[in-house]
Amino acid sequence: MDDHLIEHPMVWQDRLPEAYKEAGPRIVETESGQQLWQYEDRRSSNIGLNAVAGKDPTQYGVDPIRYDQMIPGCYEPEERLKDMDIDGVYSGLCFPTFPRFAGTTFNEGVDKKLALLCSQAYNDFMIDEWSAIDPVRLPPLVVLPFWDVEASVAEVYRTAAKGAKAITFPENPVPLGHPSFHSDHWEPLWNAIEETDLPLCLHFGTSREIPTTAPDAPEAVFISLMGTNSMKAMADLCFSPVFHRHPNLKVSLSEGGIGWIPYLLERMDDTWEKHRFYQAINQEVKPSELFRRNIWGCFITDDVGLALRHDIGLDRITWECDYPHSDSHWPNSRKMVEESFIDIPDEDVRAIVETNAAKLFKLKV
Amino acid sequence: MDDHLIEHPMVWQDRLPEAYKEAGPRIVETESGQQLWQYEDRRSSNIGLNAVAGKDPTQYGVDPIRYDQMIPGCYEPEERLKDMDIDGVYSGLCFPTFPRFAGTTFNEGVDKKLALLCSQAYNDFMIDEWSAIDPVRLPPLVVLPFWDVEASVAEVYRTAAKGAKAITFPENPVPLGHPSFHSDHWEPLWNAIEETDLPLCLHFGTSREIPTTAPDAPEAVFISLMGTNSMKAMADLCFSPVFHRHPNLKVSLSEGGIGWIPYLLERMDDTWEKHRFYQAINQEVKPSELFRRNIWGCFITDDVGLALRHDIGLDRITWECDYPHSDSHWPNSRKMVEESFIDIPDEDVRAIVETNAAKLFKLKV
Repeated sequence: MDDHLIEHPMVWQDRLPEAYKEAGPRIVETESGQQLWQYEDRRSSNIGLNAVAGKDPTQYGVDPIRYDQMIPGCYEPEERLKDMDIDGVYSGLCFPTFPRFAGTTFNEGVDKKLALLCSQAYNDFMIDEWSAIDPVRLPPLVVLPFWDVEASVAEVYRTAAKGAKAITFPENPVPLGHPSFHSDHWEPLWNAIEETDLPLCLHFGTSREIPTTAPDAPEAVFISLMGTNSMKAMADLCFSPVFHRHPNLKVSLSEGGIGWIPYLLERMDDTWEKHRFYQAINQEVKPSELFRRNIWGCFITDDVGLALRHDIGLDRITWECDYPHSDSHWPNSRKMVEESFIDIPDEDVRAIVETNAAKLFKLKV
Repeated sequence: MDDHLIEHPMVWQDRLPEAYKEAGPRIVETESGQQLWQYEDRRSSNIGLNAVAGKDPTQYGVDPIRYDQMIPGCYEPEERLKDMDIDGVYSGLCFPTFPRFAGTTFNEGVDKKLALLCSQAYNDFMIDEWSAIDPVRLPPLVVLPFWDVEASVAEVYRTAAKGAKAITFPENPVPLGHPSFHSDHWEPLWNAIEETDLPLCLHFGTSREIPTTAPDAPEAVFISLMGTNSMKAMADLCFSPVFHRHPNLKVSLSEGGIGWIPYLLERMDDTWEKHRFYQAINQEVKPSELFRRNIWGCFITDDVGLALRHDIGLDRITWECDYPHSDSHWPNSRKMVEESFIDIPDEDVRAIVETNAAKLFKLKV
């Protein structure tokens, strides 16, 4: 479960109080014809990060710079449903683009009152507008004003009451200037999320850490390595107190891939067996047991992971489309899935492409 | 093939010219009874990084601070051979400790003439003293003065002529202040290494990058994640010009583990399929083909990787002991290997624990 939407120009202008509209996110057009988001005194580098659905791979590498360079399914929910029909995809959890995948754009906002209003406006857009046309096929995924734990707790309850189905959160808050998963800082938030039973989606890259190797390395290096961010999030959480204190918390490693999971489970357990005695980590429960209770993996294509599905745990795996990004196979997702799953029994396929996600996100399909 | 040695106190004092002995590495003893290396105006944090062979895991976490706190096999080659006999290990490639696994300590030396002499002295110790007692069971692994390509080229030829069997090199030179694998900078060195046919051993962690998540994360997090450094090295090299220009170069990812290799091969190939058109990367050869020709994996325990040995390539895998570090199973390596390989056919076991390494390092066993 991982897709993306491009926010239409009026998402914030329609919702912010009059006094905040000027500083809040709005679309400006440059002399060269590029459309950009203006937020406070900063401009986004582009509006359509990697929104290349429908393009040939030989055309990749240049992000769209205007809405009319994207297919409408990127930003119109009715059109999105049609594109999902073409692709044979029933339901897709959509991550934000201008706010970034976990709302970290607002973490950088100078006026934190405005930043809170922007997060809330995005969530209202998500629930009242984007998902409203079909909350099962486009389940509402909300952002948090995570720089303020108290405000985040309030937003969890507010959006849960309005029908939110999941929360997107940074895979690691430390590079964003906040305390780690090992601190007590987030306790009130984990309590609220556990109580409302909303899965936390940690999309890879939301820590803003790019696993690059060198200034002159081609992008293919970090693209190949993005899953190491999810590996870090998994090890970080499994050696933290979070799941011990919150046994019902659910974490989905969005777009992280799954083929590395058995390796990391073994490596974490080996590390725990040998190195737990001198460290402030739980001495009773193996990290792999936490994974099998609290974490879900998510992939687009991962034949290695599919072959290892029973080592991962069949119930831990969900499939994603990643529309409209370049990693997506739209409009050929169903064809790709058919090829990729050709040797997998029907009941396993059904768990991976449908029932696991339906259960995790409580979607009545 | 990955073990470690602790340098005895006279390695450099026995070999440096008189004028350099004072500034060169020598053992000093603190008032509290700790033995440390003094090199120029810096002192090492300890002499016996993780040299815990023979200790119970409940005693880990404190590095030895004196030679008499380590078993003699750490620093005496005759004793090492006896310890290898006890463990049932025939041959082991030993990485340096005070110079660090790829000689990066000397990269930090202020006097670069001294730093070059220190690298050469280590290599002379390695070939003339450590390996001399049995060059097959303790094959000479040399360091390079890699901050100086011309001097490195000379050292490759000098040590190859003296019997060096392999070279230890940083998994990524960029964090150490040097040009990347994507630059032309290293070309003369790759030419020399290709000509002498010495495998390059990239031990994880030699970039000095520690994959930690937070200042307050327990060490178990980065210990579990150290293999991501080898993942980065593999993607970095496979998307670089290195193997295209030097088809006979051999790279061993020392201690990197192997269970993640099939995942990364698939992910690199997918990335190459979709993203090669707009990037300065080879357009004809898939990254996985380079791996299968130029790279070897290395592991201590990795049941996931063993199960995936045919996806990795049976000829790509070597086993290591890691004596005297805490990841080693000494003196129970053979028992551990028996358990770990129990379902593996004899011919596959033989390739992994013996013939692959013998072939790669040209050891007449």
